[in-house]
Parts: sequence; C-alpha cells; structure tokens
Amino acid sequence: MSITRESIAQAYQAIQDEITKGLTALDGKSTFVEELWNREGGGGGRTRIIQDGNILEKGGVNFSAVHGQLPEVIKKSFGVDDDQFFATGVSIVIHPNNPWVPIIHMNIRYFELNEEVRWFGGGIDLTPHYVQEEDAQFFHQQLKDVCDQHQPNFYNDFKTWADNYFFIKHRQETRGIGGVFYDKLTPEKTGLSFEEIFNFSCDLGRSFVGIYTELVNRNRERAFGEREKNWQLLRRGRYVEFNLVYDSGTRFGLETNGRIESILMSLPAQANWAYDFKPEANSLEEKTLSLLKKDINWIK
Amino acid sequence: MSITRESIAQAYQAIQDEITKGLTALDGKSTFVEELWNREGGGGGRTRIIQDGNILEKGGVNFSAVHGQLPEVIKKSFGVDDDQFFATGVSIVIHPNNPWVPIIHMNIRYFELNEEVRWFGGGIDLTPHYVQEEDAQFFHQQLKDVCDQHQPNFYNDFKTWADNYFFIKHRQETRGIGGVFYDKLTPEKTGLSFEEIFNFSCDLGRSFVGIYTELVNRNRERAFGEREKNWQLLRRGRYVEFNLVYDSGTRFGLETNGRIESILMSLPAQANWAYDFKPEANSLEEKTLSLLKKDINWIK
Repeated sequence: MSITRESIAQAYQAIQDEITKGLTALDGKSTFVEELWNREGGGGGRTRIIQDGNILEKGGVNFSAVHGQLPEVIKKSFGVDDDQFFATGVSIVIHPNNPWVPIIHMNIRYFELNEEVRWFGGGIDLTPHYVQEEDAQFFHQQLKDVCDQHQPNFYNDFKTWADNYFFIKHRQETRGIGGVFYDKLTPEKTGLSFEEIFNFSCDLGRSFVGIYTELVNRNRERAFGEREKNWQLLRRGRYVEFNLVYDSGTRFGLETNGRIESILMSLPAQANWAYDFKPEANSLEEKTLSLLKKDINWIK
Repeated sequence: MSITRESIAQAYQAIQDEITKGLTALDGKSTFVEELWNREGGGGGRTRIIQDGNILEKGGVNFSAVHGQLPEVIKKSFGVDDDQFFATGVSIVIHPNNPWVPIIHMNIRYFELNEEVRWFGGGIDLTPHYVQEEDAQFFHQQLKDVCDQHQPNFYNDFKTWADNYFFIKHRQETRGIGGVFYDKLTPEKTGLSFEEIFNFSCDLGRSFVGIYTELVNRNRERAFGEREKNWQLLRRGRYVEFNLVYDSGTRFGLETNGRIESILMSLPAQANWAYDFKPEANSLEEKTLSLLKKDINWIK
C-alpha cells in the first residue's frame, strides 16, 4: 500500500484544520478552544470545542491518532488475537442554537491491526429539528455527488447503511434524515484500492464545510419562538438517547476508557424530556416525525 | 409459599397508592396523571406522572404486573430455557426543581419463572445535587433502620451493592450518595422465608414517603440562583448518562420493547452538558464531587 498511517493521519489533521477554520468563519463570534492530549497506551489527539457561538451553540471537531495494545473487550468483539492497533480519525458534532438549523455529525476514520488488517469507516448524517424537504434534498445530493466520483454503488449502499445505523430502535424512529455511513471498507469489498478509498474519505471530509455552511446560511436568520425552542430541546433529548444507548463510537469509547470529555462533546448544551409529548395534528412537528423513517428517497 | 403473585401485586399496588398520595400532599400544587396500559404479551400497568409541581418538577410512580413468554434476549442473559414469567414492581424517580432538594429513586420488584424460580429485587438511592452530610446521614440511617428490622447484614450488604451498582464508570464517580440495592433475593441467600423477604420489600416501599418528605422539607425553602441551577442541570446530565448507559432496568426495558414512556420517565425535564466543566476550588460543587465515591460510611 502506497499510503501510510502517517500520511493518512496527516491528511485527516489537515481536514480538521480546514473544518475548524471554515466553521469559525461561519459562526463569526466564538472560536474553537483546542486541547491537546496524550493517550497512556500510545498516541493522542487534538480536541477542538466551540461553545456559545452566534449560531454554533456547542460542538466539537476532534482529531485523534492512537495506537498500542488493542483493549481486551475489542479483541473479543472483533474476534481477533492480534493486538497491535492504530486508529486515526476526525469526529464532528455541531448543535446550533437556532432550531431551524440542523444538527450535523461527521466522522472519517482509519483502522489498522498488526499492520495487516486495514479498513476505513465514516459517514455524515443530518438531524434537522424540523425536516425541510428542500434542505434534505440538497444534503443528500451533495453526498451523492461525492460518492459518485468514487464508486457508483456507494451512495445507495451507504445511504441504506445510514438509515439502519442512525435508528433509535426504542422510539422506532430515525435520528434524523440520515446521510451516508460505511465501515470496514477494504479493496475486497469495494473494488477500489486503499488509496482510492482513502481519497473518498478525504473528499467526504472536505465536503463538510460547504454542505453545512449552505444549510446554516439558508436558515440562520429565521425567527423562532418558545414553541420551536421547546421542540428543538425535545429533539435533542432523542439525540442524547441515540448517542448514549446505540452509537457504537460512543459506547466503544466509554468501554475502553477513552477520553470522556472528547467522546461526550457530542451531547448538546441542553436537552429536555417531557412525558409522552405529542405534537399538534397537522403541525410542522408532526410532519417532522412522519419523516423520521428509513428508506425515504430524498433526491427527487 | 403462602404468598402468591396476586397478593404481592396487590400489596405493591397499595404502596403505589400510598406513595402517590403522600407525594401529592408534599407537592401541594401538581397532581399525578395516571395512564393505564396493557402489555401485548400479558398484564399491564399504572403509570403515574407528575410534572411542573411546586417542588416536584418531573417524576413518576409506576406500577406494573406483567406476565407471558420470556423474551429471547432475557432467556439468554438468565441462562434459562424456561419461558413463562411473571414480574411486578413499583418504580419511582423524582426530579425536584430546587437544586438543594435531592433526586430520589426507588424500586421494589418481584420476579417469577415458571412458578418455580422466584426472587425479589429493589432499592432506594439518593442523588443530591449538593451533598449535605447531615441529610446523607439521615437518609442512610432510615434505610438502616428498615433493614435492621429484617436481617442484621442487609444494610451493610445492600449499601455496598448500591455503591457498586449506582456507579458511573466512565466518570469514575457514584451517581449520588447511594443507599441500598439488592437483587435476586431468595430464602437460600438470605436465611429468610419468601414471606419475610416480601415483608422487607414492603417496609422499604412504605419508608419512601417519610424519608423523602423529610428531605424535601429540610431544603425546599432554601433560595437558589443561576449558579445552583446550572450545577443542578449538569448533575442531571450525569443522571441521564447513568440511566441510559448503565441502568439495567432501563436497558432491559429498551431491549425488550417495554413501554418506553414509562421507562424513560426517569429522565429529567431538562439536563445540560458543558465541555470539561470544573467547579471552583473549595466550592460546594467541588465538595460534592469529592463525596461521590464508594465506601463512604455516612452514618457516623
């Protein structure tokens, strides 16, 4: 393989830089606070957190590159005896203050086991507090454009994967309108070389700023009141439920003694719960719930 | 066994009645809204929710008595082939609005498998936003008094059990100041008859109103400002983390298609997260953190 773990980590770091720069410009008020950390077993990361922005209420753009002995619990879940791993990636979650602006999540990651087994994983998904079909169409079209440059099946396959992954089983609703999600991509599975898969993951990472900037600018000036705020906080409650109950990255981090504050940067500044809340008939809130389903074809 | 599932369910229902009555009187403003529900596979429950009270911001006092085929996932975790179960219990979580008043949780439950295997489980634990040693002492003394009437080892054993159970591993802190927790109690394990274990669980249930009334009345008139409110909301974030990540009752319910709104009544009306929040040196907040540890002997 012509690409090395170092070159991948370096490229991902550059993507972190590009994204924090882009989001800082987008917000116009708050800046990212950086924290550098080292992992006891090897490697470390750059956690970058933004809080109380003009539009970005709370979020993180984190990079890490860690290596060492694979924790016992993961060896078991992977079914392997090998125990030297390397992992690098960029993880983003952004919670905006304006309920008309969607929550966004992105992750690109690379994993190596004993310098033999290698794969890429990642995805981008969108969680609008109010689903707006034209925004959903734009979002999915952008992701499809990135995918189509690399492999004709990627968008459909990874869109389905996202629908299934970002699903709150106990609520029987999707977290949002999905996006793309993929894991353990190898040349065998994709027909692409490692370098080509790597390039795909970089293109996905580099699409982030453009996509989110457009979605923020479309909605940031829209007025909202107590009703919309309340709904946003309830939807954030669902986001918390997904992340703490199902998200494998979060649970993996909690079980393996990861850096807790970096992992839980995905949680919002505030989330609410109300007993058995039912939106009014024919409201935008009800419409949103009706669209939190798998297998919606957002690109008309 | 002279006690039947019917007599246990009836006694637990009476305890639910007594507690909702006591808490309604304590609050003085809001009342419980009752929802009766049936379980598809057999049985049902009475969910009682209070919201927006004088002092009880959000909480539930739920009773259920369900039976039928044991779900596959539980058969596996129990390591049994038997598949007819009966379960009844009362579950309570109360989130007060005043940060000086503690969050409280209680559960008493009885489980039967094929009319052969039987056990009792339950507990009460307290989560003060600000740990106050005199309240902690009162709380633990009350629990010890109930335990001591039944078995000399109960308090020590169940206090240790609670310390270990109500532990937020990824934060390396206890949820609160613990209390008592027990599970799968049988005559073999306790030296008591089923009827005596049952009587213990009822006494624990009946101690609830007196204990919480005292703790509420000690603190309900204490003034608080933005600082205390903010701290309360962050502590509630930890409560959400515990319940969604670790609490076995919650995870059991989510995995077995339980009644979601009844299960998640344990979540607060509002919870906050802030990146890497550190309390001021020598503050009451810092003192509280220093007391969220196992093996503190609260009864001096």
